[in-house]
Amino acid sequence: MAAPGPHLLQIPGPSNVPERVLRAMARPTIDHRGPEFQALARDVLGRLRGVFGTEYPVVAYPSSATGAWEAALVNTLSPGDRVLCAETGQFSTQWCVLADRLGLVAEVLPGDWRHGADPQAIEDRLRDDRDGAVKAVMVVHNETSTGVASRLPQVRAAMDAAGHGALLLVDTVSSLACTEYRPDDWGVDVTVCGSQKGLMLPPGLGFNAIGPRALAAAKTAGFPRGYWDWAPMLAMNGDGLFPYTPATNLLYGLAESLDMLAEEGLANVFARHRRLSAATRAAVAAWGWEVQCRHPDEHSPSLTAVRVPDGQDADRLRAVILETANIALGNGLGPLKGKVFRIGHLGEINDARLAGVLAGVELGLAAAQAPLAGSGVAAAVAALGRA
Amino acid sequence: MAAPGPHLLQIPGPSNVPERVLRAMARPTIDHRGPEFQALARDVLGRLRGVFGTEYPVVAYPSSATGAWEAALVNTLSPGDRVLCAETGQFSTQWCVLADRLGLVAEVLPGDWRHGADPQAIEDRLRDDRDGAVKAVMVVHNETSTGVASRLPQVRAAMDAAGHGALLLVDTVSSLACTEYRPDDWGVDVTVCGSQKGLMLPPGLGFNAIGPRALAAAKTAGFPRGYWDWAPMLAMNGDGLFPYTPATNLLYGLAESLDMLAEEGLANVFARHRRLSAATRAAVAAWGWEVQCRHPDEHSPSLTAVRVPDGQDADRLRAVILETANIALGNGLGPLKGKVFRIGHLGEINDARLAGVLAGVELGLAAAQAPLAGSGVAAAVAALGRA
Amino acid sequence: MAAPGPHLLQIPGPSNVPERVLRAMARPTIDHRGPEFQALARDVLGRLRGVFGTEYPVVAYPSSATGAWEAALVNTLSPGDRVLCAETGQFSTQWCVLADRLGLVAEVLPGDWRHGADPQAIEDRLRDDRDGAVKAVMVVHNETSTGVASRLPQVRAAMDAAGHGALLLVDTVSSLACTEYRPDDWGVDVTVCGSQKGLMLPPGLGFNAIGPRALAAAKTAGFPRGYWDWAPMLAMNGDGLFPYTPATNLLYGLAESLDMLAEEGLANVFARHRRLSAATRAAVAAWGWEVQCRHPDEHSPSLTAVRVPDGQDADRLRAVILETANIALGNGLGPLKGKVFRIGHLGEINDARLAGVLAGVELGLAAAQAPLAGSGVAAAVAALGRA
Amino acid sequence: MAAPGPHLLQIPGPSNVPERVLRAMARPTIDHRGPEFQALARDVLGRLRGVFGTEYPVVAYPSSATGAWEAALVNTLSPGDRVLCAETGQFSTQWCVLADRLGLVAEVLPGDWRHGADPQAIEDRLRDDRDGAVKAVMVVHNETSTGVASRLPQVRAAMDAAGHGALLLVDTVSSLACTEYRPDDWGVDVTVCGSQKGLMLPPGLGFNAIGPRALAAAKTAGFPRGYWDWAPMLAMNGDGLFPYTPATNLLYGLAESLDMLAEEGLANVFARHRRLSAATRAAVAAWGWEVQCRHPDEHSPSLTAVRVPDGQDADRLRAVILETANIALGNGLGPLKGKVFRIGHLGEINDARLAGVLAGVELGLAAAQAPLAGSGVAAAVAALGRA
Repeated sequence: MAAPGPHLLQIPGPSNVPERVLRAMARPTIDHRGPEFQALARDVLGRLRGVFGTEYPVVAYPSSATGAWEAALVNTLSPGDRVLCAETGQFSTQWCVLADRLGLVAEVLPGDWRHGADPQAIEDRLRDDRDGAVKAVMVVHNETSTGVASRLPQVRAAMDAAGHGALLLVDTVSSLACTEYRPDDWGVDVTVCGSQKGLMLPPGLGFNAIGPRALAAAKTAGFPRGYWDWAPMLAMNGDGLFPYTPATNLLYGLAESLDMLAEEGLANVFARHRRLSAATRAAVAAWGWEVQCRHPDEHSPSLTAVRVPDGQDADRLRAVILETANIALGNGLGPLKGKVFRIGHLGEINDARLAGVLAGVELGLAAAQAPLAGSGVAAAVAALGRA
Repeated sequence: MAAPGPHLLQIPGPSNVPERVLRAMARPTIDHRGPEFQALARDVLGRLRGVFGTEYPVVAYPSSATGAWEAALVNTLSPGDRVLCAETGQFSTQWCVLADRLGLVAEVLPGDWRHGADPQAIEDRLRDDRDGAVKAVMVVHNETSTGVASRLPQVRAAMDAAGHGALLLVDTVSSLACTEYRPDDWGVDVTVCGSQKGLMLPPGLGFNAIGPRALAAAKTAGFPRGYWDWAPMLAMNGDGLFPYTPATNLLYGLAESLDMLAEEGLANVFARHRRLSAATRAAVAAWGWEVQCRHPDEHSPSLTAVRVPDGQDADRLRAVILETANIALGNGLGPLKGKVFRIGHLGEINDARLAGVLAGVELGLAAAQAPLAGSGVAAAVAALGRA
Repeated sequence: MAAPGPHLLQIPGPSNVPERVLRAMARPTIDHRGPEFQALARDVLGRLRGVFGTEYPVVAYPSSATGAWEAALVNTLSPGDRVLCAETGQFSTQWCVLADRLGLVAEVLPGDWRHGADPQAIEDRLRDDRDGAVKAVMVVHNETSTGVASRLPQVRAAMDAAGHGALLLVDTVSSLACTEYRPDDWGVDVTVCGSQKGLMLPPGLGFNAIGPRALAAAKTAGFPRGYWDWAPMLAMNGDGLFPYTPATNLLYGLAESLDMLAEEGLANVFARHRRLSAATRAAVAAWGWEVQCRHPDEHSPSLTAVRVPDGQDADRLRAVILETANIALGNGLGPLKGKVFRIGHLGEINDARLAGVLAGVELGLAAAQAPLAGSGVAAAVAALGRA
Repeated sequence: MAAPGPHLLQIPGPSNVPERVLRAMARPTIDHRGPEFQALARDVLGRLRGVFGTEYPVVAYPSSATGAWEAALVNTLSPGDRVLCAETGQFSTQWCVLADRLGLVAEVLPGDWRHGADPQAIEDRLRDDRDGAVKAVMVVHNETSTGVASRLPQVRAAMDAAGHGALLLVDTVSSLACTEYRPDDWGVDVTVCGSQKGLMLPPGLGFNAIGPRALAAAKTAGFPRGYWDWAPMLAMNGDGLFPYTPATNLLYGLAESLDMLAEEGLANVFARHRRLSAATRAAVAAWGWEVQCRHPDEHSPSLTAVRVPDGQDADRLRAVILETANIALGNGLGPLKGKVFRIGHLGEINDARLAGVLAGVELGLAAAQAPLAGSGVAAAVAALGRA
């Protein structure tokens, strides 16, 4: 039984859906072939480019982000192609497994789940790839399982330094609309995203932002393509239409969340996420605990994975926190199971809500008799006050 | 411009309406003469008795609580009757003014706005009233302008000690469903309430709980009565009907909020309000500030009126808090204007949300460069952890 | 058990609340003393004047329309004043009863419940009132119990012809935003309305539009006034504030319904109601039945009261229609109980919905084996097609 | 500009989403790894079996129904496999095209778009297939582009008569929850469906119901599978979990629509659709027009495709109907463009709403000066009355 009072969904996505987005989604479904829908679709697809930081098209599937992963691969590659997957955690691994299942040769650049993609390792591997066997490099911008953000400009620089022509495919599922992202400047060829994190929607939309090199690659890519095929999507999106029935009500919500982002201003949105992330780390430090991320330039703006002290079971702590404070936190995934819990601080959240979340977590930890060196909430509020 | 992120309505009512109540209210309006409505009305009117702590009927007007004040007076009294108003703050004063405007002789028992109704003064005054001129004593259970709760059992004892037969009319607008209330045991004859505080609804319903002595008084009360007349309300409510069009959608919401109260259990609801109130005072103490309430047994469970230090303008601080933290606080009323701000901690709120509110307030106060001795949030969280 | 499928609320008010109004009302309640609320209140109170057809102020109470009846009386009159009530049906009678209960001398100008207020009778009575004992004439613009609209310009002309200075108080509960209404031109002094009919909101708001003669009368009116007092309402409304907690969420809905009326244009709204009313009468005629209204210039644009043939019980027919077609119709009130049912065709309704309603009614009547001469639906559709 | 009044979405899907489903979907998104979600998922996945008429598992993708088409193919077949597609209209053709794009050999059994799948032709073709090259037969149960339903028991009998072991894959996108469907009795191996028609939800969920032969086929099927792979879905669904983020809010809505279907009873749901379909044909006949479906046993219960008279442009008529009656109809697809319009009468619709739709269509047709022999509405109401 959770505590009474408002429930807080502080997993690292889905994030809390703003009530105005929920209300927008409660509009009756309309004809997706009619003029009202066409105007809506053209509007949101156009405005999405700004949020994706690109001048090139963005397509939206009725799917989870996993579908958008698959779309990025099957539209640009051919069965048997080699792809290089920078291991950063559970989600980079799952994307890699998906590539393997689809028939790609998925080569893992190993990582320790406490750092982002290693630019030097990528550069070295690509330099070795003299015959250009590697067709794509797959990087998760913000690894949702660890709270580690990869440094994409450095990854780009590494690929350039190696003089390698592989495509760069980037998962921004938990970074988009949370932190700066400039695919056109950084030479990202396909951006993968979902609706349920920085975009503050329920899950159900998967996105690809498609750069010009990816579009060229799609012409010769050898995977058979049906549902995920970019071509009919791009052809019809210009008219505000879709090749099959779109998730109309989520698009209503998207129009609203794009309004919210525009009202606040993306630069302010990014600054807010940075501030909340730093405050969360201040709380963790005050407890005397450690975060999963090890590199000071790689802290995620969207979530913090907190390592629990030896002898503590992170999942038991999460259960106590849910029970005492009605706050849902993310669990440790894969090898991190039981060793970390993850606090999402992305989407619709501000200083007061973050402080409330940290207070609830702290009260839960205290109730579970976890060892706390000091008041994390006080440290977080102090950090917020200085920011 | 308020800060981005979720708005928190922390005035001492209306309180934050839970999303499930808002959704319940979004049901299409139905025929208020049909069987579905009748079942709804009988259900909520029945369950309201439990929340009002009475075995006697409760009536619900489409009105604000001010209307329910008027109803309590015109159904039990006659023009020219003398009533004794215990001054505890702005709302007791306004009720007294209303009585005066309606043609009653409204006698004020003066107060300093930092204490509840004074049982001894009531006893003394009633003892002096040998000929029984005083027909009713009017007490505000929880004075929303000051955060001071009157001790009703002592008031009752005082009236009994004086051996006086005046009716006892009690305003529970900001106490009902927040703190223990037992009108049948305490000899309260009419209870006045509204929908927008402990009942967690938008404003628009006014309530009277009517004890047997009040019902008897209504038979001879001399005020002309139309809209507020109890008689047709009581006659029709038995069948789930109303003498005029009820506020149907608010009744949908009421059914939902009654569910929420039942799920948590009233005793738990009361304990939660006490705990949050104590934690708020701990925060104020840590800031080195003072609360308006002076008597340790009279702290309101629903709100805390915080006195700002000399030289500070409470309304400027409120404006900064709204701007920096998107939290709306209550202003100082009447003579307290600019001298206090009021934090509502009633209705749908739990430890985490309160901590978030206090953090937002603290950040706003810091931004406004108000002098703060220490971290109120840390003190509040510590208090919550001990509770 | 009602039939499956969408329920249609075709009583003559509350009318079907449009989904966009319901969604607007589901917004979280805000501080009614804050700047966002002030802007909202000023906006809706300003735009209401246009819908009430007046340049003078409109006030909005948290109340049913019955409260607005009371407000109109107590603000303009004194106990013992004589008022002239034109009997047109149940609601004119109830308003008259209310006046009587409040202590006015309520004189009834008798009517047969099949005609509107009789201008000649009013003129005759006022001519006889040489000493000006009659202080106000009370007319229901559109009698919701009978579907008969009174001809207000003729009533005004009659009062002028009599050279009598009585105030003219008009109930527009079921006519406002359904048919043309020009109080300033017609010399109406107080207009009474509610939220749940032409304004397409749930019940819970009562309105008074206050002309200059009424405002002058309020200065000397002798009724004690608390809740209903115009003075503080008018004083505070200028700043977007209310003397007591307003029904905030209904005001959200009102802003939306005012948008809808503006989008369609009031002249189109009125034409639509006329057209649907005529089509409904065409259906009744095709069934071989009779409507309650007898005067061709007095058909209500908002509802049609249908007289059932001898031997039929209107309430049984209504029950069958609810069961077979999931359509709620209005019952016969007072002496019309069992003799009529009432079809509301006001608010959010268009040709297709009306045809559906009439089809559902016809199917229900057929299921109940009521005698039908021909197809009312076909006649109605033909009438709509010609319009 | 559409007419004022409630919009009716009478395309053959998405159907009008009931307001209670929209409200259910407006609940805040929860953690899809938490216990509350698990209970929800187990509940809806279990109850879905009843609606799909099967004792075998049903899986739900975040996708459109097109995705569920793809899932049915890639889980059961291998690249290069031959499939037999019974051409019945646009959707059977599109499914066939999808099979072709994915690398199957998609053989078309030609049809005239006015009949369902031809059992005899299927039997003949399968008898000729001595070496079992045909691995699957693909049939659209209810062809949404033509309003023709295929007779599945006869198709099954034909396959049995041929003694052929091909899988039977059936699209029930516009038939499920509208008409009887018994995959276990009829030997259907995979059923494909979406959320937005008989299930009365917005689009965004794609379904496969998976029979035992299909499950066996999945073990050897050679397509690479990622997003659409049944195996992890089936493995995790038992615990109420999904292999990737599910469309949580649509599952809220699904729980509600399953309640609605259970409240009415599936047999009643089917009877209602049959009745409304027959009434619609009665209207078309009264206009003197023709429906697209030619076989009396193959009329769709969900929609009626109406052939417009020579010289009329169906799309112009649709535009006039939208403008005059605010009703959206489906257009003619492929070769039927401009020659038919399609009236959806599926999902949340009853006799009264259908009559209203037909009245609106008739008024629009009259406004467009299309030749009408008589009153379709009257004929429809008469047909409904006899039913």
